[in-house]
Amino acid sequence: MAKPTSVKDYIRTIVDFPHEGIMFRDVTTLFADPRGFRMAIDQMLHPYAGERIDKVVGLEARGFILGGAIAHQLSVGFVPIRKKGKLPGTTISEEYTLEYGEAIVEIHDDAIAPGEKILVVDDLLATGGTCAAGIKLIERLGGDIVSCAFVIDLPDLGGRKVLEGLGMDVHALCSFDGD
Amino acid sequence: MAKPTSVKDYIRTIVDFPHEGIMFRDVTTLFADPRGFRMAIDQMLHPYAGERIDKVVGLEARGFILGGAIAHQLSVGFVPIRKKGKLPGTTISEEYTLEYGEAIVEIHDDAIAPGEKILVVDDLLATGGTCAAGIKLIERLGGDIVSCAFVIDLPDLGGRKVLEGLGMDVHALCSFDGD
Repeated sequence: MAKPTSVKDYIRTIVDFPHEGIMFRDVTTLFADPRGFRMAIDQMLHPYAGERIDKVVGLEARGFILGGAIAHQLSVGFVPIRKKGKLPGTTISEEYTLEYGEAIVEIHDDAIAPGEKILVVDDLLATGGTCAAGIKLIERLGGDIVSCAFVIDLPDLGGRKVLEGLGMDVHALCSFDGD
Repeated sequence: MAKPTSVKDYIRTIVDFPHEGIMFRDVTTLFADPRGFRMAIDQMLHPYAGERIDKVVGLEARGFILGGAIAHQLSVGFVPIRKKGKLPGTTISEEYTLEYGEAIVEIHDDAIAPGEKILVVDDLLATGGTCAAGIKLIERLGGDIVSCAFVIDLPDLGGRKVLEGLGMDVHALCSFDGD
């Protein structure tokens, strides 16, 4: 492999994971590299320089790695959105549709105060289903979403259009076609 | 509640989660507060000032939030240890015993190079079972563990002794007795 020069160069593709026919874009090789991880976090923050952000919300589980780093960089709080049953306090929840069946995500009902400026973070924008459910949770608590930031966009799966249809500003560091 | 002045003050206790009789120490209130989260990350790093650390390993899932922030602060790479079936590449795995039954954790087999200096990060040290399994994974890949860093130690559950018995240096920001 040539020496990586961009965030995208650090991302590994695993064929047929989690099932046949899927080209899985694996960010663990990006995160494990000191230059790659630093570049990813710095570049994810560039669009928001000078903007007010009160809290970073990360989507379980890879969004926790990115969101923790970004919240620390900004010296703001971090709030997790988790799969059902994982958060110990009082939660609100949203159901959404997966390729096969449904899933539920939750947020603590006191995790965001009305009017707080929120940055939503995850590694991958595919169909946008999980993120759209997360957006609904944040907005039900009165949060004002500044933007949704991703490492990877898979434009063929339409997630960006889904989120933009919800009025969201969307940024991704790179995209892979043909997924 | 009095105004929090220490990391411990930001931690909320949820009674009877995930089941009756458990006092669950909830770090989400620490992470959601800008001062709390900043204090936690800064204080977790204090013992290692001047030490060589090549990679941060975080244990799923709350260890990802802390580990991402710490890796970014240090400008080093981040490596996840995950529950079985979550990592897309070739993995090695370790089984360990839970209160009821067994669990398996995995690491990518190319995530750590022999001799790399590793900081292991998680939110909570209880029995030490998950962390001990993670230590075995890291050592099987030839990683040299500098220390294991936690927000909370529950000394009554004996995890510190388990890890120290494996030759580990252990740091925690606070402890709760009677768990």
